[in-house]
Amino acid sequence: MSRLDKQIAFLTEADRLKTVLRATTLCDGSRIENSAEHSWHIALYAMVLAEHAEEDVDVLKILKMLLLHDLVEIDAGDAPVFGDHDEEALAAKEAAAAERIFGLLPDDQAKTFRAIWEEFEANETPEAEFAKSIDRLQPPIQNLQSGGGSWTQFDVTLSRFEAHIGPKINRGAPGIWEWLRPQVAAFFNARL
Amino acid sequence: MSRLDKQIAFLTEADRLKTVLRATTLCDGSRIENSAEHSWHIALYAMVLAEHAEEDVDVLKILKMLLLHDLVEIDAGDAPVFGDHDEEALAAKEAAAAERIFGLLPDDQAKTFRAIWEEFEANETPEAEFAKSIDRLQPPIQNLQSGGGSWTQFDVTLSRFEAHIGPKINRGAPGIWEWLRPQVAAFFNARL
Ligand SMILES: [Ca+2]
Repeated sequence: MSRLDKQIAFLTEADRLKTVLRATTLCDGSRIENSAEHSWHIALYAMVLAEHAEEDVDVLKILKMLLLHDLVEIDAGDAPVFGDHDEEALAAKEAAAAERIFGLLPDDQAKTFRAIWEEFEANETPEAEFAKSIDRLQPPIQNLQSGGGSWTQFDVTLSRFEAHIGPKINRGAPGIWEWLRPQVAAFFNARL
Repeated sequence: MSRLDKQIAFLTEADRLKTVLRATTLCDGSRIENSAEHSWHIALYAMVLAEHAEEDVDVLKILKMLLLHDLVEIDAGDAPVFGDHDEEALAAKEAAAAERIFGLLPDDQAKTFRAIWEEFEANETPEAEFAKSIDRLQPPIQNLQSGGGSWTQFDVTLSRFEAHIGPKINRGAPGIWEWLRPQVAAFFNARL
């Protein structure tokens, strides 16, 4: 196989991310969103919101992270953040998926892509922290728009949201969390 | 409205790109793809294939172009490349869409995003040329995989493909066109 053969084989396999369904709906609530369009949306989020990162960040690296961060779901599926799942088993499944899917690329690119994905997962660099914050920010924005969405499906409460999601958004983008928190609180309080 | 209010209003409006349908199907032919997941896919294409650009290119600028290039379709719709449409009327519709949609952003970002979109449309910088080549490359790859796709729908012939699409892919990514052309020829010749 030529270098281009391998690159296109990878990109063709990546097409399957369009069939992986998430818990979140579109803003209009009309249907569930898939992980490919979600990945596009959060890359656009990062383009618009990079100025709110906690530290100076390399936007190119963040876009690369967000574009490839969900590819492992082609084999491992989407694990909804408020769903029950065995973290260890999921991590093993995702590592195997990364090995197989990035392994379709020429060796040098397989290594580079795998390293970007691992940096995102490790959540220790300013870029990974901001990318993770953005990945956690988009679902509540969709849920506020659609009138509940995945919060309704998983019976989420305000305190559970603040405990599980708050710190993750706050870590990479504290100014955005400060902006979002009262809106989410108002939404849940209006439902009581 | 605060800066963040405007930014999130733009990102929420952008969500509607997930409901704009294209002519191309997924690789497995199971359904038509939408412009949001298409935008994700070609941004990933650009990440993988940037080394094949005709000139040295700024990958960050290309990713930004590809992430926002189709947003005008929220108002103007997708114009299939082999469909009939009034080019002038379409350009006017898209310019009005750019005005409205990018205009949701804070002024400085509205200008920056509009300028990136205009650079893409003008197709004169190495980044725009490569981005346009990639935008033209993905549909034939999908069609080869699905066994015809939008070529069948629009009764496309090999000579029409070579005349309309070939030069566009070749302009920014000649090595990829050289790789693709015999595969497309073999596909059409096998159908005779
Ligand atoms: Ca396009």
